[in-house]
Amino acid sequence: MHWSRWGDPAEAGPLPESAFALVDAFLGTSETPAVAPEDVRLSDPLADELVAELAEIVGSEHVLLDHETRLHRTRGKSTPDLLKLRHGDGLDSPDAVVRPGTHDEVAAVIAWGVRRNVALVPFGGGTSVVGGLAARREGYAGVVSLDLIRFDRLLEVDHESMTALLEPGLRGPQAEALLAAEGLTLGHFPQSFEYATIGGFAVTRSSGQSSAGYGRFDALVVGLRVATPQGTLELGTAPANAAGPDLRELVMGSEGAFGVVTAVRVRVRRLPDVKVYEAWRFGSFAEGATAMRTLAQAGLLPTVIRLSDEAETAINLARPDAVGGESSGGCLMIAGYEGTAETVAARRTACTGLLADLGGTNLGEEAGQAWAEGRFHGPYLRDSLLDVGVLVETLETAMFWSRLEEVYAAVKQALTGALGESAIVLCHISHVYETGASLYFTVAARQADDPVAQWLTAKAAACDAIVAHGASITHHHAVGQDHKPWLAQEIGPVGVMILRAVKDRLDPTGILNPGVLIP
Amino acid sequence: MHWSRWGDPAEAGPLPESAFALVDAFLGTSETPAVAPEDVRLSDPLADELVAELAEIVGSEHVLLDHETRLHRTRGKSTPDLLKLRHGDGLDSPDAVVRPGTHDEVAAVIAWGVRRNVALVPFGGGTSVVGGLAARREGYAGVVSLDLIRFDRLLEVDHESMTALLEPGLRGPQAEALLAAEGLTLGHFPQSFEYATIGGFAVTRSSGQSSAGYGRFDALVVGLRVATPQGTLELGTAPANAAGPDLRELVMGSEGAFGVVTAVRVRVRRLPDVKVYEAWRFGSFAEGATAMRTLAQAGLLPTVIRLSDEAETAINLARPDAVGGESSGGCLMIAGYEGTAETVAARRTACTGLLADLGGTNLGEEAGQAWAEGRFHGPYLRDSLLDVGVLVETLETAMFWSRLEEVYAAVKQALTGALGESAIVLCHISHVYETGASLYFTVAARQADDPVAQWLTAKAAACDAIVAHGASITHHHAVGQDHKPWLAQEIGPVGVMILRAVKDRLDPTGILNPGVLIP
Repeated sequence: MHWSRWGDPAEAGPLPESAFALVDAFLGTSETPAVAPEDVRLSDPLADELVAELAEIVGSEHVLLDHETRLHRTRGKSTPDLLKLRHGDGLDSPDAVVRPGTHDEVAAVIAWGVRRNVALVPFGGGTSVVGGLAARREGYAGVVSLDLIRFDRLLEVDHESMTALLEPGLRGPQAEALLAAEGLTLGHFPQSFEYATIGGFAVTRSSGQSSAGYGRFDALVVGLRVATPQGTLELGTAPANAAGPDLRELVMGSEGAFGVVTAVRVRVRRLPDVKVYEAWRFGSFAEGATAMRTLAQAGLLPTVIRLSDEAETAINLARPDAVGGESSGGCLMIAGYEGTAETVAARRTACTGLLADLGGTNLGEEAGQAWAEGRFHGPYLRDSLLDVGVLVETLETAMFWSRLEEVYAAVKQALTGALGESAIVLCHISHVYETGASLYFTVAARQADDPVAQWLTAKAAACDAIVAHGASITHHHAVGQDHKPWLAQEIGPVGVMILRAVKDRLDPTGILNPGVLIP
Repeated sequence: MHWSRWGDPAEAGPLPESAFALVDAFLGTSETPAVAPEDVRLSDPLADELVAELAEIVGSEHVLLDHETRLHRTRGKSTPDLLKLRHGDGLDSPDAVVRPGTHDEVAAVIAWGVRRNVALVPFGGGTSVVGGLAARREGYAGVVSLDLIRFDRLLEVDHESMTALLEPGLRGPQAEALLAAEGLTLGHFPQSFEYATIGGFAVTRSSGQSSAGYGRFDALVVGLRVATPQGTLELGTAPANAAGPDLRELVMGSEGAFGVVTAVRVRVRRLPDVKVYEAWRFGSFAEGATAMRTLAQAGLLPTVIRLSDEAETAINLARPDAVGGESSGGCLMIAGYEGTAETVAARRTACTGLLADLGGTNLGEEAGQAWAEGRFHGPYLRDSLLDVGVLVETLETAMFWSRLEEVYAAVKQALTGALGESAIVLCHISHVYETGASLYFTVAARQADDPVAQWLTAKAAACDAIVAHGASITHHHAVGQDHKPWLAQEIGPVGVMILRAVKDRLDPTGILNPGVLIP
């Protein structure tokens, strides 16, 4: 992962000329390069004495203090994170990076952190977009990134139960490759797939592009091992049970604040023989959303189902005349099917019939395939736009179906209210349930003098709208530092009390990812 | 509900003669009548001063102290509960019964309980079989049953989101009748359906006989309102989200120890047009289990799917020659389909093909229909057997598929080890998932002099076996008082610490259902 951009710059390519022209016409552009990485100011490295103690636990080769290593573990990949780094501000960097190799080493590092009052930030793929990696440093003797990169094994496969025990440092493609060798797949493909890790998926309640078929990540998890300051928590004796509250659901979403996940037992599926994606056009976002709801409530979902609103459809189809909001192109839906030839055929036939009945026009596989090929590419585009002084960011929410329309309108209004009418606001639905769905917004605007403050103002307006209309502050990006005030509103004072009670009991000195999650 | 028997005795009928002969031959029988209800010794009624205070909150007509009312809220419906009552021991009775009518009245009763140090036991249908209604009374000024019977309304229906907001005191049939008037169903039909309540389903993580089609109750819940000593907790903004830990999953399974649920928002489905149940025969329990696993992992489950082992099949088919364990009759499976004519036909065709491929013999609809008609009748049979001095009880567990065979064998061995080789141990699988299933055991034995102690010894042996083989202490009966020691083993000391932390924070004086759930 690049220090101030997404992924591997070799994969990025420049902004396509047509896109550049479009952005230039609507928002204006100006070269806005990043500083050189060596010029980014980081925190002071961890004190020698503490480094020596850590080295005794994990070996000196696994305690790293160099500029580059620490820079790469500084914050996550939100636009404010990138903007700060591009301007040379890396003051949220860890003072050291420690790479334990076993559960016991993680436990020992935690015990050391408690003893020495050093904050520990669990680090997987570094893809947080909500400030999940920027620990509060006041009051601590230092901040150390607890990098799980050495936890990269497939520990067990149970073909009968169709489960696998994975280590948390496995990135998406690594996990899929190990499972594929067993004829299996996890089926979890969020946009961050190429870099994000199994542990991160679990503690942030990630949801992938194939969630309609394979399920959200929290629905894939059947067991967890967690190192906490009070000892090891081991959960998961059955798919489901009535043995009190489901504590797995308390670890999932805990973002490292309660403990460090050192193993995750997941439900797996057989590798699909067939994958086919096709595009559909609906007359409007509302019509397309109704079609999705009808499918979900009929129990007839494809593996992938996504619907862009008019504006996002127009951008996707590169129709410059439509960007302003008016579009005669309707709304693009992607429906994808994965499985055996037989199950894909049956599901596709049933869904196709229903989608056509509901007003959809089948556009064929070409556009579907194009989506599948570019599915992990979105974040690269952001870097190209930041390079030319355009502010780009995303945010997302989830709600029950009956609130979708009002939340959609309110968030769009909040964003254009804050960023000006010239701001481009795109939206899609990418995760659907019987009772509701997610909304994912992409925003672009001309950068103001202080683009971080500019975005935070807009984001706050959007979050206020989300909460005011009874939606959730996040469907699959977690809470981090950024969503805390709205989480407090969403779960109320008693909900916050519960999180605080668990935190205080498991991590009384508060060394685990301080400042994250808990309002 | 009868004070010392299941349900409505008018519905029960006597033990069929064939069954009586069977039991008499294998276990021996002797008339063992219950004492008269007026002869059951209860706790002393609540002090007048406290009664007067409660009456100020809810009105004096909703504070009840009479023998009958208190007797009916004494313990639950486990066999030890019934045996104690039949012998005249009602000392776990509440000292009073209070019936608040609104959320605010519940909150006021809780505040009063805290002020007066009176234990409060939330009461729904009174069907607990794990000691969930027998609060610890030492250290409290009294024990009051907080009866939710007045919470019997359907508050909201959202046809677009397919959700309904139900009050917790609604019994299964009441909830279904209210929803049916809207063309909807919850689809939750546990054996206790006729008496158990919506609130009870939620806080015990109930699972119904149609769980393969409609989902466990915890999967049906999308929102909850809870009155706690610290204020109101209101959860549920979306079907799923990433806004930290899912606190709904902490309320579900909390058995009244964290707060009192005053409203439950559930996912609903359209009333099925067609319901068809049919029977299948498999050569062995293992073969039938493999067929269920194959269906579950193919994503092709019927609405209802159950499989009796050889012994239970033999009893069901009234084949006295087979009771000893040897059976030439194989294993009976029930597969049921509910939905529209079209979806039922499609699902039934697909499942039928697969079940036949997997060695099943279709026995037609008659036996399936017989199961459906008798589906809520099982508990009545127990009363008839207790009347003739036979000990009968059930227990259940859940595990991943790869452990099913060993858990099945170990629990059977533990039960016959404790109760003697003459004990009858029957088993079925009634809930299946991609990664595992439940096992539900029914046990009958000749009563010893102290049948309560006799059962507790056998149950402990079974629970030890369950935990030793990595299964869950309960799939759908909850923890109560009875499962606490094994819950502690299942979730470990850190898991217990989490439950205790939440309890201590929300209910620091411990007045909510003391002694229940938390080890």
